[in-house]
Amino acid sequence: MTESRGRAPRRPRPTMDDVAQVAGVSRGTVSRVLNGGHYVSAPALEAVQRAIRKTGYVVNQHARSLVTQRSDSAAFILAEPQDRLFEDPNFNILLRGCTQALAERDITLLLTIAGTQEDRKRIGRYVTAGHVDGALLVSDHAGSPLIDELHSRGLPVVACGRPLGHERDVSYVAADDRDGARQMATYLRSRGHRTIAIITGPLDTSGGVDRLAGYRDALGEPDPMLVVAGDYTRASGEAAMEQLLRQAPDLDAVFVSSDLMAAGAITTLHRAGKRVPADVAVGGFDDSAVATASVPRLTTVRQPLSRISTEMVRLLLTSIAGEQPSAVILQTELVVRESA
Amino acid sequence: MTESRGRAPRRPRPTMDDVAQVAGVSRGTVSRVLNGGHYVSAPALEAVQRAIRKTGYVVNQHARSLVTQRSDSAAFILAEPQDRLFEDPNFNILLRGCTQALAERDITLLLTIAGTQEDRKRIGRYVTAGHVDGALLVSDHAGSPLIDELHSRGLPVVACGRPLGHERDVSYVAADDRDGARQMATYLRSRGHRTIAIITGPLDTSGGVDRLAGYRDALGEPDPMLVVAGDYTRASGEAAMEQLLRQAPDLDAVFVSSDLMAAGAITTLHRAGKRVPADVAVGGFDDSAVATASVPRLTTVRQPLSRISTEMVRLLLTSIAGEQPSAVILQTELVVRESA
Repeated sequence: MTESRGRAPRRPRPTMDDVAQVAGVSRGTVSRVLNGGHYVSAPALEAVQRAIRKTGYVVNQHARSLVTQRSDSAAFILAEPQDRLFEDPNFNILLRGCTQALAERDITLLLTIAGTQEDRKRIGRYVTAGHVDGALLVSDHAGSPLIDELHSRGLPVVACGRPLGHERDVSYVAADDRDGARQMATYLRSRGHRTIAIITGPLDTSGGVDRLAGYRDALGEPDPMLVVAGDYTRASGEAAMEQLLRQAPDLDAVFVSSDLMAAGAITTLHRAGKRVPADVAVGGFDDSAVATASVPRLTTVRQPLSRISTEMVRLLLTSIAGEQPSAVILQTELVVRESA
Repeated sequence: MTESRGRAPRRPRPTMDDVAQVAGVSRGTVSRVLNGGHYVSAPALEAVQRAIRKTGYVVNQHARSLVTQRSDSAAFILAEPQDRLFEDPNFNILLRGCTQALAERDITLLLTIAGTQEDRKRIGRYVTAGHVDGALLVSDHAGSPLIDELHSRGLPVVACGRPLGHERDVSYVAADDRDGARQMATYLRSRGHRTIAIITGPLDTSGGVDRLAGYRDALGEPDPMLVVAGDYTRASGEAAMEQLLRQAPDLDAVFVSSDLMAAGAITTLHRAGKRVPADVAVGGFDDSAVATASVPRLTTVRQPLSRISTEMVRLLLTSIAGEQPSAVILQTELVVRESA
């Protein structure tokens, strides 16, 4: 049912004239106070400040932004379908870290979800129209068309992960994916495993490419039957593991390029009657909340996610201040638990 | 390690003058095209449109917004700590529904998380400064100070749930909480339960107040030992159930005011060696993803969450168009599964 309500007239926003009237000064004095308080007597300054509090006056940001070109806000653009935000705990941690680091500087973070091509167009238009001072771009596919657009329009952007094709002109913060994968593959071999498969991320993502490269560094060129790509979702980990068991039934270990996919792979292994790690050892990547919730708990590679978010915010602020792009690569660390 | 990058000069944004030059027309002609194309010849119109595409010119929204006062965006303000967003699947569904309904109208949705008093101030400032056309306010505590501020500044606002104290002057969409609770309590009694406890939501929220009222409608004034309040988190459901077992060890059923708290209550009951529903029947509220993931699956009250989000967007658009506030109350439905 729909209930109609009585009239409740909306109070108009207080104007600069209202402030001037309450303060008993001219509009020009109010304007000078708002622009830094030069050439204003101390009593007039105080009267205007009191009047601003009393009237609840807010500077018209459209007008002010024409001058300062600042909105004191930044977009956190998730260029992935919305479900990924809720499925993968990495995003939660990144979002929290960025929100806090920006809040300390009194900057508002706006989360936008650009899951489709239309979303990306619309959001690209919004963020390049002066409503935000810069954007944190978070995507598995860091080389997405959105990055081209934001970059070409001159918006300060910092990518999470190496932005394929934009390594030189867009700032980014990444974990050392290749070295992390190398550590995991080396560890699996040191434990006596001989047939070590890999479930990669999508090969148009830096995480997909670099973690496979690290595995190759440690183990050499793999039998193609030992390599299957997933898309970082739990379901893709389950499916990739099914395919590996068909293609290479004698495998005794698998390096999975994300914890969420590793949890999916374990589900498939259990369903096939395999014990983890006794029959098949499983190594993950991320050290997210999934790693410790999984049964058995995951041996994995730790990405320093909260450090990544504070570094992203730092680079964004330097970029807004006019600095040239730079990259920060953070070390990864092997964390040994029960799954391998 | 930090790697510095070579210089990659940022391309300046194209201006109206650039468009005029490429089109071979005057700046005034470009301006007339941007403002609707009146008094512009067909060939000039085409030339300007081609030049806009070629240069990648974007209208300066600060300047334009001074005229149209529209940004084609809406804020989804979650006035809760960030963890609630990820813990409670209700928010995921609401967010998806609102995003889709707005995307169909080419309006960008910006998610902001106002978990602290400082967040609320900063976000209140941003959204009332003309960067968004309106706000969807989602909070357990719908009567929060934020609603006062947004309302007093004249921003179109639609609340999710009855906004205590603002029922007449702020639009809202709510499920019929009271009737849903009445259905659940009546059902529990019809199953032969005699000592039916309730875990309420916070009693400064409409969901907290109204679900308790529905329980009272069906069962009369309860023994105070049978009433404990939670805060809609899983942990609070566990704690509230512990308290109930101490206060009223002979209870044989409990109506829990959210599915997430009900899942927490079941954990406590199992830990105490109680079978659900054989020893204690548990009824939830929401019919969220938690209801079917729970063991046993929850008997609960369904809130039509995707309908709630489309109605919220509909009311927001009518409010932006200048209509008076209105309220939409949607029916709830008892869903019987295994827990009661």
